[in-house]
Amino acid sequence: MSTTHLLQSWLRVRGATEALAAPLSPEDQQLQSMPDCSPTKWHRAHTTWFFETFVLQPRGIPPFDGRFGYLFNSYYEAVGPRHARPRRGMLSRPTADEVTAWRRLVDSRMVELLETLDEAALAELRPVMELGLAHEEQHQELLLTDILHALSESPLLPAYQASAAPIPDRPEVPLRWMEHDGGLVEIGAEGEGFTFDNETPRHRVWLNPFALSNRLVTVGEMKAFIDAKGYETPSLWLSEGLDFVRRNQICAPQYARYEGGVYRVFGLHGLREAPDHEPVSHVSYYEADALARFLGGRLPTEAELEVAMARVPVEGNFVDSGALRPLPAEALPSLFGDVWQWTSSGYAPYPGFTPAPGAIGEYNGKFMVSQLVLKGGSCFTPRAHMRATYRNFWPPSTRFQVTGLRLARDTRGA
Amino acid sequence: MSTTHLLQSWLRVRGATEALAAPLSPEDQQLQSMPDCSPTKWHRAHTTWFFETFVLQPRGIPPFDGRFGYLFNSYYEAVGPRHARPRRGMLSRPTADEVTAWRRLVDSRMVELLETLDEAALAELRPVMELGLAHEEQHQELLLTDILHALSESPLLPAYQASAAPIPDRPEVPLRWMEHDGGLVEIGAEGEGFTFDNETPRHRVWLNPFALSNRLVTVGEMKAFIDAKGYETPSLWLSEGLDFVRRNQICAPQYARYEGGVYRVFGLHGLREAPDHEPVSHVSYYEADALARFLGGRLPTEAELEVAMARVPVEGNFVDSGALRPLPAEALPSLFGDVWQWTSSGYAPYPGFTPAPGAIGEYNGKFMVSQLVLKGGSCFTPRAHMRATYRNFWPPSTRFQVTGLRLARDTRGA
Amino acid sequence: MSTTHLLQSWLRVRGATEALAAPLSPEDQQLQSMPDCSPTKWHRAHTTWFFETFVLQPRGIPPFDGRFGYLFNSYYEAVGPRHARPRRGMLSRPTADEVTAWRRLVDSRMVELLETLDEAALAELRPVMELGLAHEEQHQELLLTDILHALSESPLLPAYQASAAPIPDRPEVPLRWMEHDGGLVEIGAEGEGFTFDNETPRHRVWLNPFALSNRLVTVGEMKAFIDAKGYETPSLWLSEGLDFVRRNQICAPQYARYEGGVYRVFGLHGLREAPDHEPVSHVSYYEADALARFLGGRLPTEAELEVAMARVPVEGNFVDSGALRPLPAEALPSLFGDVWQWTSSGYAPYPGFTPAPGAIGEYNGKFMVSQLVLKGGSCFTPRAHMRATYRNFWPPSTRFQVTGLRLARDTRGA
Amino acid sequence: MSTTHLLQSWLRVRGATEALAAPLSPEDQQLQSMPDCSPTKWHRAHTTWFFETFVLQPRGIPPFDGRFGYLFNSYYEAVGPRHARPRRGMLSRPTADEVTAWRRLVDSRMVELLETLDEAALAELRPVMELGLAHEEQHQELLLTDILHALSESPLLPAYQASAAPIPDRPEVPLRWMEHDGGLVEIGAEGEGFTFDNETPRHRVWLNPFALSNRLVTVGEMKAFIDAKGYETPSLWLSEGLDFVRRNQICAPQYARYEGGVYRVFGLHGLREAPDHEPVSHVSYYEADALARFLGGRLPTEAELEVAMARVPVEGNFVDSGALRPLPAEALPSLFGDVWQWTSSGYAPYPGFTPAPGAIGEYNGKFMVSQLVLKGGSCFTPRAHMRATYRNFWPPSTRFQVTGLRLARDTRGA
Repeated sequence: MSTTHLLQSWLRVRGATEALAAPLSPEDQQLQSMPDCSPTKWHRAHTTWFFETFVLQPRGIPPFDGRFGYLFNSYYEAVGPRHARPRRGMLSRPTADEVTAWRRLVDSRMVELLETLDEAALAELRPVMELGLAHEEQHQELLLTDILHALSESPLLPAYQASAAPIPDRPEVPLRWMEHDGGLVEIGAEGEGFTFDNETPRHRVWLNPFALSNRLVTVGEMKAFIDAKGYETPSLWLSEGLDFVRRNQICAPQYARYEGGVYRVFGLHGLREAPDHEPVSHVSYYEADALARFLGGRLPTEAELEVAMARVPVEGNFVDSGALRPLPAEALPSLFGDVWQWTSSGYAPYPGFTPAPGAIGEYNGKFMVSQLVLKGGSCFTPRAHMRATYRNFWPPSTRFQVTGLRLARDTRGA
Repeated sequence: MSTTHLLQSWLRVRGATEALAAPLSPEDQQLQSMPDCSPTKWHRAHTTWFFETFVLQPRGIPPFDGRFGYLFNSYYEAVGPRHARPRRGMLSRPTADEVTAWRRLVDSRMVELLETLDEAALAELRPVMELGLAHEEQHQELLLTDILHALSESPLLPAYQASAAPIPDRPEVPLRWMEHDGGLVEIGAEGEGFTFDNETPRHRVWLNPFALSNRLVTVGEMKAFIDAKGYETPSLWLSEGLDFVRRNQICAPQYARYEGGVYRVFGLHGLREAPDHEPVSHVSYYEADALARFLGGRLPTEAELEVAMARVPVEGNFVDSGALRPLPAEALPSLFGDVWQWTSSGYAPYPGFTPAPGAIGEYNGKFMVSQLVLKGGSCFTPRAHMRATYRNFWPPSTRFQVTGLRLARDTRGA
Repeated sequence: MSTTHLLQSWLRVRGATEALAAPLSPEDQQLQSMPDCSPTKWHRAHTTWFFETFVLQPRGIPPFDGRFGYLFNSYYEAVGPRHARPRRGMLSRPTADEVTAWRRLVDSRMVELLETLDEAALAELRPVMELGLAHEEQHQELLLTDILHALSESPLLPAYQASAAPIPDRPEVPLRWMEHDGGLVEIGAEGEGFTFDNETPRHRVWLNPFALSNRLVTVGEMKAFIDAKGYETPSLWLSEGLDFVRRNQICAPQYARYEGGVYRVFGLHGLREAPDHEPVSHVSYYEADALARFLGGRLPTEAELEVAMARVPVEGNFVDSGALRPLPAEALPSLFGDVWQWTSSGYAPYPGFTPAPGAIGEYNGKFMVSQLVLKGGSCFTPRAHMRATYRNFWPPSTRFQVTGLRLARDTRGA
Repeated sequence: MSTTHLLQSWLRVRGATEALAAPLSPEDQQLQSMPDCSPTKWHRAHTTWFFETFVLQPRGIPPFDGRFGYLFNSYYEAVGPRHARPRRGMLSRPTADEVTAWRRLVDSRMVELLETLDEAALAELRPVMELGLAHEEQHQELLLTDILHALSESPLLPAYQASAAPIPDRPEVPLRWMEHDGGLVEIGAEGEGFTFDNETPRHRVWLNPFALSNRLVTVGEMKAFIDAKGYETPSLWLSEGLDFVRRNQICAPQYARYEGGVYRVFGLHGLREAPDHEPVSHVSYYEADALARFLGGRLPTEAELEVAMARVPVEGNFVDSGALRPLPAEALPSLFGDVWQWTSSGYAPYPGFTPAPGAIGEYNGKFMVSQLVLKGGSCFTPRAHMRATYRNFWPPSTRFQVTGLRLARDTRGA
């Protein structure tokens, strides 16, 4: 990445964050509706803290406010203590306006820094810059998932964005199986272009022959599952999943209400009816697993999805489309976008994995337990952020992320 | 209360609420730091809802927004369902600005109504108006206690009001006992002037001879209690109180830190050192009870305090002084103000008590269990709100209110 | 109390405890079904520990097992640390047989001690002996309430005692009001005969004229309350009570099921149908308060009940009757027995109350907050234990005790 | 398995359960110290219920008591509702003696059945018999882990078995790495001999070259970890693990106390000092992972352990040795026994896995999320129960099982 390219990326990514926050009032930006979510303002501040802490400070530029390190460190133990995550919504100060001012200051200091760097300094800076920008892209997605959750708490069911883009009129795509031979394949990142450390090293995996569905599982299939009393049928469920839906009295995906044959979803444009051929979304791993079993398939492993994804271009319904919701499949559907696809693979280190040294090394490795891998990106993900080797991860109870599924099944092979 | 008087009260009380909220940003006004507290914005909206619901709507004036009833009803079962109390901080909409607009609209509608009423209509309106204004005065105090709690949650320890009024330089007042003969006395309200229903009916009570301390228990006395390991001495405590302080690891009053001989208090002006002769504040009933025992006295009953208070004018350090903190006692101290005084009396109906009919009847009676009576008002209470018969009430674990104590003891009598 | 009398009391009380435990297997005796309950075995051990600690040890007789002090101290802070109350059911050792052996040993040591005492030593010993025996009588009642709760947890609904005494055939007693003039009365204990410290000192109280119902509130009246949707009618409830029944999904008294017009109660003889004119039992204070309001009355105060009780003999359905369940009222009903009667009086110290010195002083005073007074004793209470001045006390949510109510109302007086 | 063999297995396994319960009183057998544990009596009853339900009932032999199905079903949704797991300790009835009688009755009915079966009937019966006996062996281990936990709750720290076998005097074994080439290997069960369904099907896995330590991680290495403040060093921990030890204030393995240089362990023989070269035990996955990192290694995957285990005989310190505690390594140590070995592999279905049909199919598959695989068996496991393909599984927070670890590391290969 050249200086110019880096500057362009910088301006694009930082501007995108502000654009996503623009529809939100100072009050909206302060909402924290559960410990797993953070306020919009906090996302805007934390991503700024990242560059101040890992780029500006090591180069002698003092922080804007020495107390912000405590407030806006997320989980970096090596950087010091930090404000308790569940209490981020208690930070009325700095205000949203003050965070805007801070972002502008850091932006101009960063531009000044980038413009004055020589080649050697740039080479040294590049890894942390690429990580910082990828990190900010992740928080852009979280900004949207978190404000969706927060707005869903209001009895007014307010829209993040009142006017939605028109939805393309597409016919339903019948289910078809895409066969793969399996065998001794390679997955993981080679090291060309930026990747997170958890995508490395590239390594061999044996796969039995398998097939993937040509499209994501749909709202119509979820309706069939509910109609067949799927949520109350123990034989479809993992034991922990059955406990989960019983304890939380779950009878539909998060944000969805299925009453009188009508399936309504609360999304960034408010409450709307969802057509049958839209991908189902906001399901936990437990629901995805049960739904796949109900449909006669299973969830794919991460290796199965990755080898299939590696063969096709990274195209699909990402945040860049402006739709901000899953869309019915196209005739020639992509393997990416719309909703994150749950895999049956626990999030674990790849063979030979070594975390980066220092605080940056806390980025991924320390979360490698009790979570499942998801692939493919969603309608809230920036397109530039996605690739076949990308490994997202969440606990199996997660429902506030834009999560759905694609079916897999074993085949005899060729 | 004449129309003019009512109009004046209206403008004074409603204006006082807005003045108290004025130093707070939209973000500050949204903070809800625990279920017992409400956001500033919510207090401003709820008190407005009260007049819209109980004054304007019954007179044919439709609500500004039909959905606000659900959001801003506090606990009136008779008026219908309502937003869950612990989730009030999740209401980013209406914004603070929208609440301001709503308040202005209701204010002008109310003024118009009051100015056009004839005598008969006024007479009918007066009780609910008086209740509504007294209710708003209560929320003024809560607005302050709640924002104090919210601001105390921020690691920045921000001040509600940066510049404090100068503290009067007063010498320490030695403890003196004020004797009372007891006997068959009367307490409770006669019915002249506005009172809450819980103050009625006036009734007879037998009192043994007793004495009250001439001043409130002080920070210096609390320091002595802590120095003597009072918080860890079981014989000083009620069993439930000992459990409470152990479970919550309490070793000083709320907002207070006593380290290295220095007693610091977080208040509306930020963190400050408190002098020894300032009244101790933010103690639970358990701590007040233990502290009284440690000092060789006991908490007074509500009847004891009321008969003493009934003999003196309602003067003291109320919110009107602008101090917004307890002040050292004057040479001739009042029995009112500075801090609410815990009594050992459970909050129960007076003999012959009957709640008002309708929704308004839910005001007091339904809370008459598991709470203790407090008397006298605090530095956050409007002076006009206070009287000798006034009965405040809180559960014994309450510490976020401005609560302290005065000592009592049994005497032989004359 | 003479030596002979003391010996007789000793043998009677200690024997009664063992008789109550006799129907229970070692496994039954170990059950602790909630933190508020204790295992039968623990009650038998704790009452033994009391005499060993407060009678034998001060007279130089060493404890049977030095480790038992830690296990079987209930709450005496002055005596040292103790096993956590909610984990009493985890004590498989000592076994029930070992506790029996311990009881026998302490019994013989006590008899030996009592038989060898001179007058002076007896006089010194008497207060703690009387307290210890009263204490053991209290634990006899708790032994029954706790095993009832434990057995109710088993899907087998096993009976404590399979064969019940025949129930007397009594006609329904119509409600009648017994009038009292009120005025300046005296309540509390004079000091003749044994009383707990919380019954003292005797003191004056002013009462308005009032009336009490001639019988306890019945199952039939509870059925009417349920039929009228009383559990779901907010206007009948204290706010805390409504939260309580909603949160716990309560729609009938503890151990009662009212389905298809039939009211069944689980008791010490298993599940049985209860007739309409049996006193209702196992209601919380909240339910008692709501039921009284529904019936057009109110709960009496402790002073009202005490002055009425002081005029009549202590007769009624106590544990001595062997019924072990409330019975329909007799034509000339007593004011005592069947079920404890909730009063609206918070459990607070009487004017001038001073706890006993030392560990014994922890008996009552330290519980004087957040509880309500109950009067009259129940069908699980030893008759010899009861008197008009007796003050029982429980938190308002208590339902596992044998608790019911009598109605009161205000009258104009003579 | 012939009839004779089956009969012998039956008598051996059933007798072993009773032998393990023999040292325990009826009170001990009733203890349930946490929801994850079950009372001894319950284990004895549940394993009996298994044969009654899945063997006797389908062959027309009615259950001993029709109500026991509800009490002693563990988690088989297909068999019907069941008593809540956390309340198993509330079942005082049936008593331990009654369970013994039930076991004897089922035993004799089973023997009668087995002795009268022809070849065809035996062939049909064999799978469920083998499963039932393997199931009972699992409960034998749980019986020991659960009673250990229960006894550890008593302040008396009572021993399950007072007299321990003498501990062999063995010199410390230095750490040595056993190299493996990796490559395309096969793991999982072929189907010869009994295996659980989760061990199938046998399938190919690619492994990079790796090495395993020749012995388990020891108490001495745990002491070094604690001395180096390992429990407080964030960089050694998974994020979830750090939260876990902080929240639970964990500073040593379960049942271990390390004070003043002395490492004491509570085990089935009471509290004892553990020598440095004893395998460390009762560590969660989090602690195992952190300890491995501290020691410069990592946890093995299940495939790595299995391919190594498949090459050596199933020998080691199992329950059959009578030691009932981990022992220092022998000069030529086995890969099995002493403590279960945590692997870094999430418990997931093998490629092509299909659960058995019917209720039996609920045995393993429905638990395949949020757990880690453990290998090798422990000193509480019957030797006959163990094999290289065996997959045990527990959540990462588990500490009451006999869990430890062996180190692995990546190598360059040959």
